[in-house]
Amino acid sequence: MQTKGHSRNFIYTDWILIETQFDPDQLHSKETVFTIGNGYLGTKGSFEEGYPHALPATFIHGVYDDVPVVYTELANCPDWLPLVVIVNGESPLETLRERFRLDQGKILRYDRQLDLRYGLLSRYLRWRSPSGKTIDINFERFASFADQHVLVQRCHLTPVDFDGVIEVQGSINGYPENQGFNHWEGLDQGKTDQGIWLQRRTRHSRIELGMGATMRISGTEASLQVSTAPGYPTLSMTYLAKSKQTVTVEKIVTVFTSRETETPVSAATEKLAHLPDYATLLKANEQAWDEVWQQSDILIEGDSTAAFAVRYNLFQLLIAGSRHDDKVSIPAKTLSGFGYRGHIFWDTEIFMLPFFLFTQSAIARNLLSYRWHTLPGARRKASHYGYKGAMFAWESADTGDEVTPRWALGNDFYGEDVRIWCRDREIHINADIPYAAWNYWQATGDDEWMQQRGAEIILDAAIFWGSRVEFNSERQQYEIRGVIGVDEYHEFVHNNAFTNRMAQWHLEKAIAVYDWLAQKFPERATELEEKLKLTPQERSHWQDIIAKILFLHEPLTELIEQFEGFFQLEDINLADYQGRDRSMQAILGIEKTNKYQVIKQPDILMLLYLMRESADFPYNEKALQTNWDYYAPRTDITYGSSLGPAVHAILASDLGKSSEAYEVFMQALMVDLEDNRGNTSDGIHGATAGGVWQAVIFGFGGIQLTENGPVANSHLPDGWTRLKFKLHWRGKWHDFDLRKGQVAQDITRQLEYLHLSLSPNPPNFPSEASEHQTSPPASPASPAPSSPSSPHSPIPNP
Amino acid sequence: MQTKGHSRNFIYTDWILIETQFDPDQLHSKETVFTIGNGYLGTKGSFEEGYPHALPATFIHGVYDDVPVVYTELANCPDWLPLVVIVNGESPLETLRERFRLDQGKILRYDRQLDLRYGLLSRYLRWRSPSGKTIDINFERFASFADQHVLVQRCHLTPVDFDGVIEVQGSINGYPENQGFNHWEGLDQGKTDQGIWLQRRTRHSRIELGMGATMRISGTEASLQVSTAPGYPTLSMTYLAKSKQTVTVEKIVTVFTSRETETPVSAATEKLAHLPDYATLLKANEQAWDEVWQQSDILIEGDSTAAFAVRYNLFQLLIAGSRHDDKVSIPAKTLSGFGYRGHIFWDTEIFMLPFFLFTQSAIARNLLSYRWHTLPGARRKASHYGYKGAMFAWESADTGDEVTPRWALGNDFYGEDVRIWCRDREIHINADIPYAAWNYWQATGDDEWMQQRGAEIILDAAIFWGSRVEFNSERQQYEIRGVIGVDEYHEFVHNNAFTNRMAQWHLEKAIAVYDWLAQKFPERATELEEKLKLTPQERSHWQDIIAKILFLHEPLTELIEQFEGFFQLEDINLADYQGRDRSMQAILGIEKTNKYQVIKQPDILMLLYLMRESADFPYNEKALQTNWDYYAPRTDITYGSSLGPAVHAILASDLGKSSEAYEVFMQALMVDLEDNRGNTSDGIHGATAGGVWQAVIFGFGGIQLTENGPVANSHLPDGWTRLKFKLHWRGKWHDFDLRKGQVAQDITRQLEYLHLSLSPNPPNFPSEASEHQTSPPASPASPAPSSPSSPHSPIPNP
Repeated sequence: MQTKGHSRNFIYTDWILIETQFDPDQLHSKETVFTIGNGYLGTKGSFEEGYPHALPATFIHGVYDDVPVVYTELANCPDWLPLVVIVNGESPLETLRERFRLDQGKILRYDRQLDLRYGLLSRYLRWRSPSGKTIDINFERFASFADQHVLVQRCHLTPVDFDGVIEVQGSINGYPENQGFNHWEGLDQGKTDQGIWLQRRTRHSRIELGMGATMRISGTEASLQVSTAPGYPTLSMTYLAKSKQTVTVEKIVTVFTSRETETPVSAATEKLAHLPDYATLLKANEQAWDEVWQQSDILIEGDSTAAFAVRYNLFQLLIAGSRHDDKVSIPAKTLSGFGYRGHIFWDTEIFMLPFFLFTQSAIARNLLSYRWHTLPGARRKASHYGYKGAMFAWESADTGDEVTPRWALGNDFYGEDVRIWCRDREIHINADIPYAAWNYWQATGDDEWMQQRGAEIILDAAIFWGSRVEFNSERQQYEIRGVIGVDEYHEFVHNNAFTNRMAQWHLEKAIAVYDWLAQKFPERATELEEKLKLTPQERSHWQDIIAKILFLHEPLTELIEQFEGFFQLEDINLADYQGRDRSMQAILGIEKTNKYQVIKQPDILMLLYLMRESADFPYNEKALQTNWDYYAPRTDITYGSSLGPAVHAILASDLGKSSEAYEVFMQALMVDLEDNRGNTSDGIHGATAGGVWQAVIFGFGGIQLTENGPVANSHLPDGWTRLKFKLHWRGKWHDFDLRKGQVAQDITRQLEYLHLSLSPNPPNFPSEASEHQTSPPASPASPAPSSPSSPHSPIPNP
Repeated sequence: MQTKGHSRNFIYTDWILIETQFDPDQLHSKETVFTIGNGYLGTKGSFEEGYPHALPATFIHGVYDDVPVVYTELANCPDWLPLVVIVNGESPLETLRERFRLDQGKILRYDRQLDLRYGLLSRYLRWRSPSGKTIDINFERFASFADQHVLVQRCHLTPVDFDGVIEVQGSINGYPENQGFNHWEGLDQGKTDQGIWLQRRTRHSRIELGMGATMRISGTEASLQVSTAPGYPTLSMTYLAKSKQTVTVEKIVTVFTSRETETPVSAATEKLAHLPDYATLLKANEQAWDEVWQQSDILIEGDSTAAFAVRYNLFQLLIAGSRHDDKVSIPAKTLSGFGYRGHIFWDTEIFMLPFFLFTQSAIARNLLSYRWHTLPGARRKASHYGYKGAMFAWESADTGDEVTPRWALGNDFYGEDVRIWCRDREIHINADIPYAAWNYWQATGDDEWMQQRGAEIILDAAIFWGSRVEFNSERQQYEIRGVIGVDEYHEFVHNNAFTNRMAQWHLEKAIAVYDWLAQKFPERATELEEKLKLTPQERSHWQDIIAKILFLHEPLTELIEQFEGFFQLEDINLADYQGRDRSMQAILGIEKTNKYQVIKQPDILMLLYLMRESADFPYNEKALQTNWDYYAPRTDITYGSSLGPAVHAILASDLGKSSEAYEVFMQALMVDLEDNRGNTSDGIHGATAGGVWQAVIFGFGGIQLTENGPVANSHLPDGWTRLKFKLHWRGKWHDFDLRKGQVAQDITRQLEYLHLSLSPNPPNFPSEASEHQTSPPASPASPAPSSPSSPHSPIPNP
């Protein structure tokens, strides 16, 4: 294995992340970094044998349970990892039992590896026990990508310098914790011919979970014992170990919940009874991964850090995207941490979704269908706030009801409770979700989904805007007052340009969808008209809003005011705060930050980015330049929102600021691998991972989507000699193999549009670029809509 | 055993509570009712073998840990109860293992008994397993009153109709839960020659706990196995059982925390290694209880329900009062439930303390010293609110800082959060604690405690009032505005009569204590003057407040207005709501309740009760009659505060309303035995238990404290033929043996004041009443202060 590079904490090859030293201070961030998963569940990289203060966690999509203050959270599920090795030595005396643990004895070799290609996590250890016995231990685990209910562990044990009794205990720990809270009540547990099982149920949401586990040993004879301590069933194997002889223990766990079957325990034990051996399971897993990487990989040459780290970010998205369940979506911290409690934000639609949309469109459809399933919750929210239609939750979970906490409650006996206003005011999400639904339709031509689900999302969310805007009769314009824009440093603003323009854009598309539906699917149109109380008056109202919504924009300079009065706020020079290690809000305080022209993340620039693809108002080159010059220096890009850097990277790339683009891209790229915001322990930054993909494809790759398909106008960073990826667009795969210097768009396109047949052994991509048809999801019978660009050109307001 | 009576749920003898049927619907309330304890810890009456949804709990005084919203709570400690019996039958097949559990098989006999005399909880069961094997099982447990660190269990097992293998598993469950939250992180665990041990630490407060456990078997030979599932160490004994032969298993657990020793695990295992056998432990426990009941028992004849239930309430206080630690106090729900999170209220000083003061004064001193230890927290609270001196927490825990939650947060996604204002406004506690400290001094003559601790409490809390009152220059009077009085149905009132008069009374006593200290302990006086910044000006300020504080009182009728404007509120006829099953606040809503003349609990009447003993203003017979007639019908006595009924019972008794007094007394008396408020599952109503004692002694016993000691002017309820108890007053025990008809006060006193020597075998009290000297706590060298009544007669305000 040839290592290709290293960062502060790791070395790596093309596909493998390697940690060669164990640092207890990084215990929690590394638990996040070494997360594995399979789109059904995610399991943090905690050690099989445990460690003081370790926070092992397994999150299963959709398994939420109630919790105070934040309403609901993803419940940490029973831990399938425990695999404890006890070296008894030659003496039968209990006191000479030595349990393998890294906080005792001596670590002579330590090597932890995450193989992205197959989702395999392994450790190679040589450990000397306190009494001086040396043993080689090699752990390996994966969550099968071929069968999402199967979790596999293997352990090789080789005594180096002793003979003696070794005991291996494999358990399911039914006492998992969410910050000390155990969401599970014990129902039952027991043993079968294959091993042990555990049945638990969440306390409030009443989701039942069944787990089964079995253990096999090879290379020796062993006695098996079953212990049934309540909530901690354990299989224990004891054998006489010989120096330098390797024994292998396999532990296989199955898991089901009542979200998939009425009888999770039976499902788990039955599956367990019919599983093949480790090698067969591993091979199926490898094949499943091969298929996925075949479509989703990005190959970078000339920059080994980026080459690996881009794949690392894609891996994180791939293990989090649900492949078989369209009632769940990807939480802000994916399935890899307790941060944000497993809640789902606009992060998914705006940052993560494009990766899936263009490489795994079935997952993209699941993600958007999740929003359709949560429409009842969004309607309850609208109704609560006195509006019509669907008002999507800023933070969403199982029902779609709003689960943003109202309060940040301090631990201080006399501290102030901070009201969190996002649930009430951060309403741009109501256009962000339709934006993603529209883009899904544009990219896939999936008319079936649009008429069945997408249209209802777009139309009912548009009805909300109709009730939310206020007509200012003095100005003769529509306003949206009292919001939080994308920039959360300003908590009560009027006419945020991002919100107003996105609402306007959304209404334009809503009318287009409405008209399209009436023409192509009149029955469905009638159905929705009745269900949503959609009238011709409403459509006219939307047109009126589109025509008259306030947008604060200086046509000469193209400078856009982020919200009314932003330019009157006190200015601040961020350079004065160089060397800081926290956000400007943390430095200035919430109140004061509201009064300065300092912003948490791109807001006007975010709007320009979202309008860039279709070159919609207010996007144009001059607007980009002007607003970049104004807003970029006022953005807390390093410690503000982690959503910022990737967007800056794309726009800087567009502006020809290559080194600036690369610098800020690296901030996004390494956010978790380097833990450069200090919160990787809370989980993977999912939106940043999605932003990385967009930065590579749309920024450096310079991809633009034309009527004829995606076109590259690449700006490869210094050092990148090759950038190779593929995109799925309207039923066809488009392969891009960009080399340094191929900047002319037309030439590139011609080079790329050659035919390619799927390789059985990715990621060895054939060297030619190509274009070819694929099977659905995009229905060949439903071509892309004929007018993908807006039927109503946006009407800027003075 | 002769049963003497029964209530809805129980039958009982003089000392033993008996439950003869198991009702799963009452699982949680019965877990509370069958709580045992020893003043160090309390353990709920959960079953040894577990039960679905059981909530076993052991609370140790002072073991608090952080929790969101309510800041801190008593941590449920590792569960020492698990004792699981598995009947294997003759087959070695695993599937024929049958675990004894009441939710399976058939219960042929069920009998649970709590013996109050010795704190013994036992169960007698005959159970038929699903496969038809019948076994008699008898469990017994106690928390030793002789050695607070020792917890004892015993189990007799007698197969009725089979021979076979029986396994008994005794565990410590290291996964205790506070509503799902586990406050304990695992440190270590292991085994010794004596058994197993467990070491845990609270997550935030870092209190370490060590537990040890051992098991012994007699009547057979058994094999012992030790299982060390993480957090669930288990001792397992397996033997060949013979039909009709009884085998006895004893399990003994020791427990220490880092609040008592630096090495809790060593302390626990060492104590375990040197413990005598079950019989010896039991005997020591019985002797310790005998001594306590000798002093604290109340004998009632002619009313078997009251006879038992009064003892039951005293038992609850006795197992909750800390005997060896003066840094803890008794939570509102004692150590028997999760309600109010183990927080400490005025309930302790005003309701529970008198029982201890007059029968266990060392515990009373501990309870008050707890408040002295929390003065730093009370000073932080005063400072936070912009006041001086000490402002005691409405809800207090380990530090004395305010831990009343700010918010009652709903689970509803769109519900309103309810602000709880008690932390800010319910300030009468700042006079209640000094009231209790003063009474302790009066009753014990403990000058040493008063000069060392009591004076600082009384003076620093008085300084708070000096900074809290506002002078109204128009009225030329002092006001206390913006408070919650005792009646919590009115949340923002001005000049609550209770608060104003208690503050005035407190300042009167503060001046008395200040002067006494200056005269008797001038050095301590100087020390406190410096520490508290106490000046002659402050003393004058107090005198000015005493003279000019507003008190809304109609001198002609003696009617007192509960607060300014109360009489202007809309009236309500509670009779219109007869048959209701919840509080008026629950029926009307918080907002509306504020606008009515309906009160949660006695407020003016509570003031009259507190001033009754010393016949201080505004107490007099006419005032009592007038205010009773006005306020009693407006009080939500049934479903308002549980603090109300006992106080009403006393005052009704004073007013000669015997049957009304008895009726409301029974509401208090049976609050937990009958679960008549439906919340016994949250824990014992500690204040009600204390109120019961006061109702019996001061109400029915008619005890008044004179210069020459307590005097009885009894009003025994119908049917009570005898009421016998003793009171400790200024170094002497006063025995009362009241018979029906002995109502003339002087005669009663003469009859009572005969000499009595302590009986070695209580509660067989000798029949004569007597008076005798005892050893300290009341120091014979420090007689009671010569002027126990206030040196400044209270000055009523027009």
